[in-house]
Amino acid sequence: MSKQYVKDLKVGTRVQAQFVVADVKELSFSAPSKSGEYFIKLVLGDISGTIKGIIWDRSMVTEPIRPDDVLLVSGEVNDYYGPQLVINYYQKIERNNINRYHFQPSCERDPREMWCSLLRLTSSDVSDPHLNKLLQQIFDDQLLVESFMMAPAGKTIHHNYLGGLLEHTLEVVDVCRKLTELHPAKFNKPLLITGAILHDLGKVEEYDLDSFTFQQTDSGRLLGHISIGVGMVREKIKQVADFPADLKLALEHMILSHHGEKEWGSPEVPQTLEAFALFHADLLSARMKQFLQVMDQNNENEANWSDWDRFLGRRVFTGFTNEENDK
Amino acid sequence: MSKQYVKDLKVGTRVQAQFVVADVKELSFSAPSKSGEYFIKLVLGDISGTIKGIIWDRSMVTEPIRPDDVLLVSGEVNDYYGPQLVINYYQKIERNNINRYHFQPSCERDPREMWCSLLRLTSSDVSDPHLNKLLQQIFDDQLLVESFMMAPAGKTIHHNYLGGLLEHTLEVVDVCRKLTELHPAKFNKPLLITGAILHDLGKVEEYDLDSFTFQQTDSGRLLGHISIGVGMVREKIKQVADFPADLKLALEHMILSHHGEKEWGSPEVPQTLEAFALFHADLLSARMKQFLQVMDQNNENEANWSDWDRFLGRRVFTGFTNEENDK
Amino acid sequence: MSKQYVKDLKVGTRVQAQFVVADVKELSFSAPSKSGEYFIKLVLGDISGTIKGIIWDRSMVTEPIRPDDVLLVSGEVNDYYGPQLVINYYQKIERNNINRYHFQPSCERDPREMWCSLLRLTSSDVSDPHLNKLLQQIFDDQLLVESFMMAPAGKTIHHNYLGGLLEHTLEVVDVCRKLTELHPAKFNKPLLITGAILHDLGKVEEYDLDSFTFQQTDSGRLLGHISIGVGMVREKIKQVADFPADLKLALEHMILSHHGEKEWGSPEVPQTLEAFALFHADLLSARMKQFLQVMDQNNENEANWSDWDRFLGRRVFTGFTNEENDK
Amino acid sequence: MSKQYVKDLKVGTRVQAQFVVADVKELSFSAPSKSGEYFIKLVLGDISGTIKGIIWDRSMVTEPIRPDDVLLVSGEVNDYYGPQLVINYYQKIERNNINRYHFQPSCERDPREMWCSLLRLTSSDVSDPHLNKLLQQIFDDQLLVESFMMAPAGKTIHHNYLGGLLEHTLEVVDVCRKLTELHPAKFNKPLLITGAILHDLGKVEEYDLDSFTFQQTDSGRLLGHISIGVGMVREKIKQVADFPADLKLALEHMILSHHGEKEWGSPEVPQTLEAFALFHADLLSARMKQFLQVMDQNNENEANWSDWDRFLGRRVFTGFTNEENDK
Amino acid sequence: MSKQYVKDLKVGTRVQAQFVVADVKELSFSAPSKSGEYFIKLVLGDISGTIKGIIWDRSMVTEPIRPDDVLLVSGEVNDYYGPQLVINYYQKIERNNINRYHFQPSCERDPREMWCSLLRLTSSDVSDPHLNKLLQQIFDDQLLVESFMMAPAGKTIHHNYLGGLLEHTLEVVDVCRKLTELHPAKFNKPLLITGAILHDLGKVEEYDLDSFTFQQTDSGRLLGHISIGVGMVREKIKQVADFPADLKLALEHMILSHHGEKEWGSPEVPQTLEAFALFHADLLSARMKQFLQVMDQNNENEANWSDWDRFLGRRVFTGFTNEENDK
Amino acid sequence: MSKQYVKDLKVGTRVQAQFVVADVKELSFSAPSKSGEYFIKLVLGDISGTIKGIIWDRSMVTEPIRPDDVLLVSGEVNDYYGPQLVINYYQKIERNNINRYHFQPSCERDPREMWCSLLRLTSSDVSDPHLNKLLQQIFDDQLLVESFMMAPAGKTIHHNYLGGLLEHTLEVVDVCRKLTELHPAKFNKPLLITGAILHDLGKVEEYDLDSFTFQQTDSGRLLGHISIGVGMVREKIKQVADFPADLKLALEHMILSHHGEKEWGSPEVPQTLEAFALFHADLLSARMKQFLQVMDQNNENEANWSDWDRFLGRRVFTGFTNEENDK
Repeated sequence: MSKQYVKDLKVGTRVQAQFVVADVKELSFSAPSKSGEYFIKLVLGDISGTIKGIIWDRSMVTEPIRPDDVLLVSGEVNDYYGPQLVINYYQKIERNNINRYHFQPSCERDPREMWCSLLRLTSSDVSDPHLNKLLQQIFDDQLLVESFMMAPAGKTIHHNYLGGLLEHTLEVVDVCRKLTELHPAKFNKPLLITGAILHDLGKVEEYDLDSFTFQQTDSGRLLGHISIGVGMVREKIKQVADFPADLKLALEHMILSHHGEKEWGSPEVPQTLEAFALFHADLLSARMKQFLQVMDQNNENEANWSDWDRFLGRRVFTGFTNEENDK
Repeated sequence: MSKQYVKDLKVGTRVQAQFVVADVKELSFSAPSKSGEYFIKLVLGDISGTIKGIIWDRSMVTEPIRPDDVLLVSGEVNDYYGPQLVINYYQKIERNNINRYHFQPSCERDPREMWCSLLRLTSSDVSDPHLNKLLQQIFDDQLLVESFMMAPAGKTIHHNYLGGLLEHTLEVVDVCRKLTELHPAKFNKPLLITGAILHDLGKVEEYDLDSFTFQQTDSGRLLGHISIGVGMVREKIKQVADFPADLKLALEHMILSHHGEKEWGSPEVPQTLEAFALFHADLLSARMKQFLQVMDQNNENEANWSDWDRFLGRRVFTGFTNEENDK
Repeated sequence: MSKQYVKDLKVGTRVQAQFVVADVKELSFSAPSKSGEYFIKLVLGDISGTIKGIIWDRSMVTEPIRPDDVLLVSGEVNDYYGPQLVINYYQKIERNNINRYHFQPSCERDPREMWCSLLRLTSSDVSDPHLNKLLQQIFDDQLLVESFMMAPAGKTIHHNYLGGLLEHTLEVVDVCRKLTELHPAKFNKPLLITGAILHDLGKVEEYDLDSFTFQQTDSGRLLGHISIGVGMVREKIKQVADFPADLKLALEHMILSHHGEKEWGSPEVPQTLEAFALFHADLLSARMKQFLQVMDQNNENEANWSDWDRFLGRRVFTGFTNEENDK
Repeated sequence: MSKQYVKDLKVGTRVQAQFVVADVKELSFSAPSKSGEYFIKLVLGDISGTIKGIIWDRSMVTEPIRPDDVLLVSGEVNDYYGPQLVINYYQKIERNNINRYHFQPSCERDPREMWCSLLRLTSSDVSDPHLNKLLQQIFDDQLLVESFMMAPAGKTIHHNYLGGLLEHTLEVVDVCRKLTELHPAKFNKPLLITGAILHDLGKVEEYDLDSFTFQQTDSGRLLGHISIGVGMVREKIKQVADFPADLKLALEHMILSHHGEKEWGSPEVPQTLEAFALFHADLLSARMKQFLQVMDQNNENEANWSDWDRFLGRRVFTGFTNEENDK
Repeated sequence: MSKQYVKDLKVGTRVQAQFVVADVKELSFSAPSKSGEYFIKLVLGDISGTIKGIIWDRSMVTEPIRPDDVLLVSGEVNDYYGPQLVINYYQKIERNNINRYHFQPSCERDPREMWCSLLRLTSSDVSDPHLNKLLQQIFDDQLLVESFMMAPAGKTIHHNYLGGLLEHTLEVVDVCRKLTELHPAKFNKPLLITGAILHDLGKVEEYDLDSFTFQQTDSGRLLGHISIGVGMVREKIKQVADFPADLKLALEHMILSHHGEKEWGSPEVPQTLEAFALFHADLLSARMKQFLQVMDQNNENEANWSDWDRFLGRRVFTGFTNEENDK
Repeated sequence: MSKQYVKDLKVGTRVQAQFVVADVKELSFSAPSKSGEYFIKLVLGDISGTIKGIIWDRSMVTEPIRPDDVLLVSGEVNDYYGPQLVINYYQKIERNNINRYHFQPSCERDPREMWCSLLRLTSSDVSDPHLNKLLQQIFDDQLLVESFMMAPAGKTIHHNYLGGLLEHTLEVVDVCRKLTELHPAKFNKPLLITGAILHDLGKVEEYDLDSFTFQQTDSGRLLGHISIGVGMVREKIKQVADFPADLKLALEHMILSHHGEKEWGSPEVPQTLEAFALFHADLLSARMKQFLQVMDQNNENEANWSDWDRFLGRRVFTGFTNEENDK
């Protein structure tokens, strides 16, 4: 059965579909006749939008409803200062019976295809035996790989969708390879590529991958993906025999400094060529995607100028490119 | 005859060689016996360094010596609080009899070979007829082309040598092409490549190409290469029949905004995809070269850490890369 | 017939008047009985305020209604979560049959009287023949003069009304003349006054003078009035025989640098006395007007303190001045 | 007898002239034969420059020599790594026998003439009786008036010479009057002019007027002229019967806020029209003078570009104005 | 009779209680039948929250109702887009018959007990006779003492409740004493403690202590508590015979500079040890309380993370501390 | 034998003493008669200053002299543009035969006594069994403890001497304890004290403790003490059975965020009460010591004002405190 999407719900529509809970509140009735009684007000959502939901009969709720639960809901849409879905019946859906793609945006490219690209690059570009073994350790960690393929690269600004981390990682690797072409014989290429692959590894623990809204985990907020990632790589390096201390230091420095400036969250600025290159490649990938995502949102509006984007600090003009690409 | 370089001059060396005048002062003798008499104190230089020069006999100087003059000098090095070259005879060398490579650093790559690359890229990537004609107008301007091949891309920070502008331009074009591969079908590629080729065109007038120290011209300082460049492109566009107004606006915007932020000298920030991409490609080329130049200077010192570089705001570590590249 | 103003419309009022369209949306009815049908929701305005407008019968709309259209509207005000004007009939008014003063704020001073002042100042202060001829070229361009007399000097912050550009220009000229009195024999006065007259010339193309809300044009946003203005002056200078290169450079530098700092949009900072003076005169005129406009808005509230003004970054106290001026 | 100036001293010159002590050090002889013995090394100066001075015979010094002492010195200039004045005899000059104009730069305008201008303005513009009496209190304080006429307006940046405070104050008053012309009926003119006259009053205590180098006093550094000035005005106001509380608050606010921004040393930003106008008038006077002083220094060099001025944050171009003013 | 609190009012509740007026507006009826008639819309509040209040019958209002008035109100709560209290009768309560603790938050500690602590510290730590007499002058000023005990230390950010100034002052004194322990023999302890006691004295005039919302007074906004406080201390010092000038300067500097940086409102930065210590002690007390107040607000929500706090610039995590303190 | 100090060396002094090598260069003779021959120029130092040293006879140098070597030197001081020590004989001193206190400044307090204080505080304040065991792990690591007792807390700004880290740590612990007194029942005290003890642990690896000039190590520069410290604590935690994950996260967050702001090198800002308190306690200790060290340097000059201190951004006034403490 195909999914009923929020954007298609109108006053009078009968509903039977899965929605994720974005917010939940227990409220007391304001009418004195119901004094002391309560009802439940929800915000329900899917990938197409959100709608208010109401459970008048609190006794239906036998175990607490929490944000991020997915509910199968039956009911009908009526109008009270806008449409609201009055719920007759609902049931919680188990986590592994959920089709995440109904609730979360995802990368256009297929994760498996992207993963293969990554493996190919590793075997061709990372000739150093210790770095190669380190990557092998990571690629053999099945749980970690699955997270890597699913994780977003951000919560709000760029590559903020399922598979975004992997897509972003591939872009960064690609730009790094271009830099080794522009300046041949200057780079330790295996080191640069390994750093590019691992630079955002901590993001698999920064975001709660079970959540449908890419919530940051407590450790994500308190430590940040940079410190988490350095810790993860340190543990993996221990499993590689005779990993050179210098190489370890060089790699840790790259991950640590890849935000480029202290005010952007790197405790030290890049001080080696590979770290400096990685920072700029990361910036290029992130910023270009950020701009493209603002353009894509705007293309739906058919206007020449996007709304003000507070992350880019500007409005974006799409008046030229549309017509040029039509040719 | 091979050139005698400043770095090889010792106390006692007899000298006959060309040097460029870096500084010139007329000083009165402090001894009362020579009260009212004057001598000339010069700073003379070539690509290898600078040395003090003295002309005791002011009557030798029949027409004023100015900074940036190249002199053929005869004399001997003696010691007065350090080595100084006492000049017996000199003669001004005419501008077109000078081998600039004795006095100015230059790009490792051959300008002619780089220019051919640029022409190749233009014909393959700039399919749009109006943009193509515009570039043709510029490439047919022999004087402009010669300046473009010789100009530096900067005075102090990056690509600051003969041919630097051309080398930098090629790097920017190359990164822009990579971006069109990363995001196919998003870019107006002919526009992006044309903007990349022309973004720093104004630098041919920002620097006094006749000077040996890449002095900025008055208009370079008062207008800046961005405004100069926009003006040059406007004039060239007039010579292309029916150049579309939209394309003109898009191209002017790219040149105007390619410094990316107002505080970096762009009166407007990039608001189109091509302008945004150009800014980031320019940044990448400039910053990587800046880092590499600091590394190269340091490699001569054989230390693991460079001196503090005030433009990068850091010291640079070269301890790893050296050994890695030895393999 | 005198105009009915928005501020006077109450529930029950019958309306027949011209309003400008500030916003327009086509919405679907939420009631299932009208499923698939649409109505039009407008925001209508004039100089006194805005009101919601509704066209229930979409078939009335034979050609699209767009923002900035002026409509002659018949209908009645009713109440639906606040007053709304239900429209029975409307008709688009042609652009040249519109009285702009019903829809846009305007300068207190008469444009023609201000223009005469400007001409007087030019003939008395701009004694240099080339500068004088340049101004003549501009004053003889009838279209340009009309735009200059009508344009605002800003969209939101200061002199943001019809005739604002001219009023602001006169203030800047006046302060510049005061500076020549304070420091006699220091200034090139003809240059300073010419720069003052032309510094914001680009604003006639930065704002869409046909719009009732001083919308920026595409080129206004992508190039900014500084670059537009420099381009306009360059073209006009070509029409003056033997215009000295130095004078051209000096004038271009003044226009280019009159925002004073790079982060305020000037690609170069003022480096000549006249450019430096122009920047400070411009600042003084703009900032004083900005403060006075906040005070004027507040005087209507009869409170001692204005609301927080985000452009000034403060609240403004009017408790003293009112009483002092009463005397 | 005319003064011998430092700039005219050469090796061999016999000297008998007054100099101010800029620095003084007691040094031990490094030669072992004089082990345990000491000599005195001075820096001596006047308005034309500084020279090293030596007293070999320490027994000549019967009471300590301190910076800012003026000495009548006899001796001869010899050469030891540059010229030095070997002193045979000296005597301290009493403070009131010194011609300050030999040692300190001073305003071009005559202080007495400037003071008359100020009195004239006060009687014409400050019609309010309380403000008028307040100014009278200040003008009747003979000691204060003398300091006001002599004090500089700054130590290094602008109006940094004898009489500079008075000159600057007159300029600020003049610009304020221009503002009342531009915006008639908006200002409380007596308040604005009084505030302009008193805004920098605290500077008479910020600088040690007895010093030849405009040293800041301890209270000048620890409190600043703004807080000192507010305190001085508060005391004077007490001596005016029935001075209105509102007027006192308005005036204190103007002095307190006249630096315009917290980071420039005003504990509150200007929040009234008169305070806002005063800030901008002060800025205009200070900045224009700052620019003109850099130009004047440069005119001595006969170059088109000044050296980098760290206070202005730029080099200044004088290539145009010179030739223009020649006409 | 116990107070009825806003948080307990529901639709249908009959009300008779005191509320403070937070806002008042006179509105015209929108129905044409009541054209030309007006009603009064209030916002009423107490320490527990706010509610809308309506007076339909304007004739009840015989003298104007103003913000900050306290009214005894009779009426009933009904529902119109949320609960509103329809008022049948009201009467203004005189200022000194009001229990402020019903309307304003207050410090947990008893003001009298805190005041005793302050007196104790003064007698033990302020051994210097002049400083001791100065404090005595202040403590003997009964009106001032009462204000000191009641005033808040801030409007929104920290210690923003009745008694907050005194609580904050005690914390600052306490930290200063700790610093004298850490660095014995470095501090002038009597000076440090006196400065700590008096540093925020100006706040008793910065806030309108009669208001229930800690409104700033006009002089509070135009002068700030720093300048007010310096003025108050200057006046009190005059009443102490032979108060040393140095000590006066040292104390004024401490008050003036205790915000630490110019951009935080201190016209001079701390330049003495005691001023520097006071600044840091003040910062520590203010910042810790600010953090604790955000935590306390969050503890009511039972969530692990607080909302974004714009003053702290972060969300605050309370997940750990709760459980740790349970033990 | 007592040490001969650099500050006591005069022209003619015969020298036999240990000095540390601050700099070493091999130079060619400039005289043509010695063409192709080399001599060694050193900078030698101890805690009292530095002096130039010369080894004319290069053959004396059988193994390379490097910075930070300590040499026993015989020779005599002569004069060549200032004093220089001509070396007849030297011998390298082994690392463990060196009295570091001749070459490096050290804390006034005895390290052993300070260590005992730390142990005492731990046993009284860190009641939590896991934290207690963690500290035990660290205190049992003999090598680590020795480094902790010797390390400085900084290179240039504060506590930059032997034992500085320990002294600073104790101050931070002390301020943290004061905070728990000010806000009883709010803190997890064992966590706060443990974090205070460990917050700068990484500094034992940030500085090369073998160096006499507190050089940063490569990892100190590339990773920083924050990341190093987090890694060290992570390793130690592994050795404590069942260390709670929450406690680990809380502690890591404290170390990571203790610089308080991203631009000061903390990748995340403090988000828990204990982390926030630690940051402010650290700041207080560091800043007070920084100020006191500037004062101490100045006390040697006997002036009222220190030189400009670029780290504090001000000059420091010591005019008051000296006299006050004399009493």
